[in-house]
Amino acid sequence: MKSVGYYNGSFGALVDMYIPINDRGCYFGDGIYEASYGRNGIVYALDEHIDRFFRSAGIIGLNLTFTPKVLEEIIYSAVAKTELKEFFVYWQATRGTAERNHSYPDGMAANLWVIVKERKMRPKGDKMRLITVEDTRGLWCHIKNLNLLPNVLASKEAAKKGADEAVFIRDGIVTECAHSNISILKGGKLITASESRYILAGTGRAHLIALCKKLGIPVEERPYGKDELLGADEVIVTSAGAPCSGVIEIDGMAVGGKASDVLKKLQETLYKDFFEKTGG
Amino acid sequence: MKSVGYYNGSFGALVDMYIPINDRGCYFGDGIYEASYGRNGIVYALDEHIDRFFRSAGIIGLNLTFTPKVLEEIIYSAVAKTELKEFFVYWQATRGTAERNHSYPDGMAANLWVIVKERKMRPKGDKMRLITVEDTRGLWCHIKNLNLLPNVLASKEAAKKGADEAVFIRDGIVTECAHSNISILKGGKLITASESRYILAGTGRAHLIALCKKLGIPVEERPYGKDELLGADEVIVTSAGAPCSGVIEIDGMAVGGKASDVLKKLQETLYKDFFEKTGG
Repeated sequence: MKSVGYYNGSFGALVDMYIPINDRGCYFGDGIYEASYGRNGIVYALDEHIDRFFRSAGIIGLNLTFTPKVLEEIIYSAVAKTELKEFFVYWQATRGTAERNHSYPDGMAANLWVIVKERKMRPKGDKMRLITVEDTRGLWCHIKNLNLLPNVLASKEAAKKGADEAVFIRDGIVTECAHSNISILKGGKLITASESRYILAGTGRAHLIALCKKLGIPVEERPYGKDELLGADEVIVTSAGAPCSGVIEIDGMAVGGKASDVLKKLQETLYKDFFEKTGG
Repeated sequence: MKSVGYYNGSFGALVDMYIPINDRGCYFGDGIYEASYGRNGIVYALDEHIDRFFRSAGIIGLNLTFTPKVLEEIIYSAVAKTELKEFFVYWQATRGTAERNHSYPDGMAANLWVIVKERKMRPKGDKMRLITVEDTRGLWCHIKNLNLLPNVLASKEAAKKGADEAVFIRDGIVTECAHSNISILKGGKLITASESRYILAGTGRAHLIALCKKLGIPVEERPYGKDELLGADEVIVTSAGAPCSGVIEIDGMAVGGKASDVLKKLQETLYKDFFEKTGG
């Protein structure tokens, strides 16, 4: 099968999968998710994603009735069914199934959804075009949750304008993109938004920060503005599917290109890590 | 049937209804909804709700492939199947069905969901207990959309504390409740939050405002703070299911009770309108 779905114990071809109309994900976006890429039957950074998944669940009081180990086994069962060389894996948990009501019973068991399908990482060295949009999201960005309407609308606006991603700007400050983090290189330093309720602390962002520290590149985790973004030596977008993408244009204006050796070094190392850890 | 579901042309008992896993409502909360109450086969204020539904769809670019008239017919078909004397009706449209991707193809046809089940309006004169919570929502509150995680969490917190509703406070200003609007009577005037991206302009709120104007009660639509809320002569919660509820307690402190004659007059008139328009 090319695209495999899993829901509460049942596997199937994704297009044939159906879920109960009363799953609370359908009415409230009452749930959390994670996504990663893999190759040769191995999911990259799976333990980091599973850790964050359980942390997110704890914050919003979602009752996951399985252990991290069982989740890992289910994810790998779904991966095995696809027989894909390279794949994208996505999973989410919704609060449970019940007739629609804002509040919910204590102890309600969460539903588990898993999807595996064919999709490759963004090619190394591929440059992105971005647009900026107002950050109209609420204060739950630090949890990878299913309330993504602003992200959908921003992504659509980017697509309409021929761009790859939308950068959210909140009161002049760069937070993150619609489905990735954004950082800059300036004067030999890496600058990236500090952790707060305005950003998700992405795994790709964590890998980039760790690598910079290892290479002796100073890292500043602090708020930075749109002016700093546009004046950066390089702009770097990170996500599970784009471990280190350079940017050539924001809102139609040329950006970056002034620290291409450093950017290239970071890209080489981060892509190498992905390929080495997913079977070479 | 007691609880009836409808999804894209199919009717069934709600517990037996299933929807495709790739409905975009499931991954992004990418959709809008409406809800009302009815009796004797008549849905109260249905035209107002259908108007708002189409307006919401227009704002987020949802492609509804049916007319308001057809929607009304579908809703009434679902109502007829329940044979309930008194009922709650809910409908939502999600952007469409496709493999998960933040952006979406132009012209994608929306999915239509309808639910009808047994539920009565809140009894006239029943007093509410409220709690206040920080308004952590984004800037899409003016559209009745499916990104409701903050509303879910606030409602659960209220339920835990034995309260009926949670009032959102944004930077000291009262916006609305987790699933209703809130207004106050003070010095003979009705004060209610002005329309903005922070509140949904509820049908119950509109009916209350119209009634006050008719009765010669001055109406101030403006931001008001938590201090004004706590010091109000009466606090009034309005929603489709609670046309005019008084409040006796907020965060454990007694409130209101200082303009009970006016409150009673408003309640009598609004409930009378509901009953008269739904078959007496």
